Amino acid sequence: MRNIRIAVSYDGTQYNGFQVQPGKPTVQGKLQEAICAVTSESVTLYASGRTDAGVHARAQIANFFTHARLPIDRWCRALNAHLPDDIVVWAADEVPETFHARKSAVRKTYRYVINANRHPDPLMRHRELHHPGALDIQAMAAAMRHLEGEHDFTSFCSIHSSSESKVRTIYEAKLNYAPVEGMEDTAGVGRIQLCFTGNGFLYNMVRIMAGTLLQVGEGKLHADDIPCIIERKDRTAAGPTAKPHGLILWQVDYDL
Amino acid sequence: MRNIRIAVSYDGTQYNGFQVQPGKPTVQGKLQEAICAVTSESVTLYASGRTDAGVHARAQIANFFTHARLPIDRWCRALNAHLPDDIVVWAADEVPETFHARKSAVRKTYRYVINANRHPDPLMRHRELHHPGALDIQAMAAAMRHLEGEHDFTSFCSIHSSSESKVRTIYEAKLNYAPVEGMEDTAGVGRIQLCFTGNGFLYNMVRIMAGTLLQVGEGKLHADDIPCIIERKDRTAAGPTAKPHGLILWQVDYDL
Repeated sequence: MRNIRIAVSYDGTQYNGFQVQPGKPTVQGKLQEAICAVTSESVTLYASGRTDAGVHARAQIANFFTHARLPIDRWCRALNAHLPDDIVVWAADEVPETFHARKSAVRKTYRYVINANRHPDPLMRHRELHHPGALDIQAMAAAMRHLEGEHDFTSFCSIHSSSESKVRTIYEAKLNYAPVEGMEDTAGVGRIQLCFTGNGFLYNMVRIMAGTLLQVGEGKLHADDIPCIIERKDRTAAGPTAKPHGLILWQVDYDL
Repeated sequence: MRNIRIAVSYDGTQYNGFQVQPGKPTVQGKLQEAICAVTSESVTLYASGRTDAGVHARAQIANFFTHARLPIDRWCRALNAHLPDDIVVWAADEVPETFHARKSAVRKTYRYVINANRHPDPLMRHRELHHPGALDIQAMAAAMRHLEGEHDFTSFCSIHSSSESKVRTIYEAKLNYAPVEGMEDTAGVGRIQLCFTGNGFLYNMVRIMAGTLLQVGEGKLHADDIPCIIERKDRTAAGPTAKPHGLILWQVDYDL
């Protein structure tokens, strides 16, 4: 059996999330149908992780086993021919049988995009959270530094999570800010990107961190409240779960 | 009567262009309906120019006359409350009665975006032309310099144009290139933005210039062929009309 690894980009707007669900459009469902069309085999696709309904991916990584002999440089084109235009396979390679897209992942990066301008951008409406009003960027960046490191992230995890351990390590939590040109006087207006790289993320973890950081930006929480929120190990201590459409799975790293 | 000027951003994907057409969804139609809902008046909206079906706008400018006394800082919110989420009014001001969004315009800027990567980006599929394969960026930039200045642009104008004079001045034609990170060895792969600023543009002119520049990038035409193509004053001398969805009306300038 060959183990094929693929990199997939998708617009999650039209899907009930990544994971296959009977009778509902899902990214995994579309990908498995495309693989089936190419290989005439019924396969299971293993992804680096699920994404919620409305969440996007620049580089979701997944793998599947097949007997098909198609040369490796033909897989992208073959799969894309059977995929809708909001899902694109842009890389494929052959990996050892022991490779598993989730279990072998050593690092994942998510980005959450916030448009803080007064009015939403219609061309970006499915890709960023519109949150009008000035935000305290410095406070948000300071709060993010408190999230870095190894912590028990129970406070930042959906109560519906089935993960046993809630301990994860965030290697880097970084804020990128692009102010609107010519509007330097209105600090905090523009686009804010929250970038998180960690060894793994719990269910809804990035969206809860984003929702909490927005409360810091609004002044409802202080940056220095973050250590206490982590310490509480209680979901109700953190802020709300930010909407899914601002979130994008950016990168998954492997030692392989 | 008050003369109200508005700045409008829209995603043109779902519309049969800007200009109102009976029985079809158009941007002008949606805007006039929203103005009617706010003012209880039937108004005509004057725009800086039409955009074709599928073409977007960052800053389309338009004006209309009304007796409504709504304070000027309330118009954006009032109109947006009656608009779909792919059309956003983001600025409004009151201008002299003599102001006309098209006739008073002194400069317009359009951008055409090309994604030259091997695979399309599903998140940008409605906003950029996917044109895989290396393009000769230097040749395209050189060709753009030949388009600058005052010329008779008959060769770059749809034969369906009703404009009497085909003479226009392009103040600036500039190419922005963003290569894909880590792929410096594959020159010409990445995103290319063609930016045109002029005193006015003929019907399909930017799309025909983009289609011609792509032929230069592919090596089918030379940069130095451009002066001859202009000289011919014949639509068949230029390249094809590039697809609409890569085009965005970026800015309209007024002396006012």
